[in-house]
Amino acid sequence: MMKLYGYWRSSAAYRVRIALNHKGLTAEQISVHLVKNGGEQHQSSYTALNAQELVPTLVISNDNGQELALTQSVAIIEYLDEVYKGSSLLPDNAYDKAIVRAMSLTVASEVHPLNNLKVLQYLASELDITDSAKTEWYHNWVIQGFTALEQQLAQYSGDFCFGDSITLADLCLVPQVYNAERFKVDMTPFPNIVRINAHCLTQQVFIDAMPENQHDAS
Amino acid sequence: MMKLYGYWRSSAAYRVRIALNHKGLTAEQISVHLVKNGGEQHQSSYTALNAQELVPTLVISNDNGQELALTQSVAIIEYLDEVYKGSSLLPDNAYDKAIVRAMSLTVASEVHPLNNLKVLQYLASELDITDSAKTEWYHNWVIQGFTALEQQLAQYSGDFCFGDSITLADLCLVPQVYNAERFKVDMTPFPNIVRINAHCLTQQVFIDAMPENQHDAS
Repeated sequence: MMKLYGYWRSSAAYRVRIALNHKGLTAEQISVHLVKNGGEQHQSSYTALNAQELVPTLVISNDNGQELALTQSVAIIEYLDEVYKGSSLLPDNAYDKAIVRAMSLTVASEVHPLNNLKVLQYLASELDITDSAKTEWYHNWVIQGFTALEQQLAQYSGDFCFGDSITLADLCLVPQVYNAERFKVDMTPFPNIVRINAHCLTQQVFIDAMPENQHDAS
Repeated sequence: MMKLYGYWRSSAAYRVRIALNHKGLTAEQISVHLVKNGGEQHQSSYTALNAQELVPTLVISNDNGQELALTQSVAIIEYLDEVYKGSSLLPDNAYDKAIVRAMSLTVASEVHPLNNLKVLQYLASELDITDSAKTEWYHNWVIQGFTALEQQLAQYSGDFCFGDSITLADLCLVPQVYNAERFKVDMTPFPNIVRINAHCLTQQVFIDAMPENQHDAS
């Protein structure tokens, strides 16, 4: 059985949980507590699997029964999508695929990297900025990314980010909205994002992946 | 003919230039000056193509002759790799592909987003940090990402990041090293990165894509 090293509140782990559910796959869920004990992601037992000291890591077995570790949520999801056929998370057409990947990377390469735990910790500890400056920082990148995404969604969305099927873009969007709501970002300027997020959260594959529904939620 | 909106010093545009060269493709190069006039990427003529106000954008023509804009360098490169067969930028095997994508995203989703122009501008203008704190910020994320990448390369590299063929990972690595050298990051702790970068820069497809060899270099 695959093993997913994650954390209930990690946006990147949340993406992979939705992908597993969407593909009807089960993985043993192993919690890496990102805060307790100075962050379990920094312990050598974990860094041997993930040199970046980030969650998630998906451990799979190859044909020889050897365990292999996959890192970077988007790379993991592309792997799952290629290996487990049926209800693909990317459209067939190359151009459409590029649009879905671009939407996904708007979240995964533009918004999330600026607002994840290690960055917020650095801002507080090394740059000694105030809580309100940290909140402004957080909001700034979410608003910038969501503003661009909202325009793409106006053009391409249906019930989901790209038409009426779940794609990689939805897997990136929903955890980012969860995160933005935690940090009290005003979502009023983003009606398409709000609508799609709400629709996704009526789907069992998203519900089962929600942070609050994980065994390590506290 | 395709049109690539880029800027000589942009790491993300540099990635796409290497991909085009690797595939033997020609695109009209259109310069979007990221600094002059407050940044041409913010002008409405460009934001109509790229709502994120980032370079690169690749404009392609579909079968009906309609122009379509692709954004996000990694999504653009995946598109080019799928549509233009021959010397693929990703390995065949799904697991290998996941490793190459993870290496690529270590740069594209972890290092680069924290150190690009808009972030450095925010640190200076909004957080009013000193130049030395800005340099420390820059170095911190490069060192963190390169430390992880160096470990992956120790396991997977040959002449290039993954074995002896050029992949997406090399396209992400070389521009990031160029950028790190501009900011005077000590590369001594990263012998595999230094070796692979040097080897890549003996290849014509990389040489032709180098910032200094672009028409808008100054």
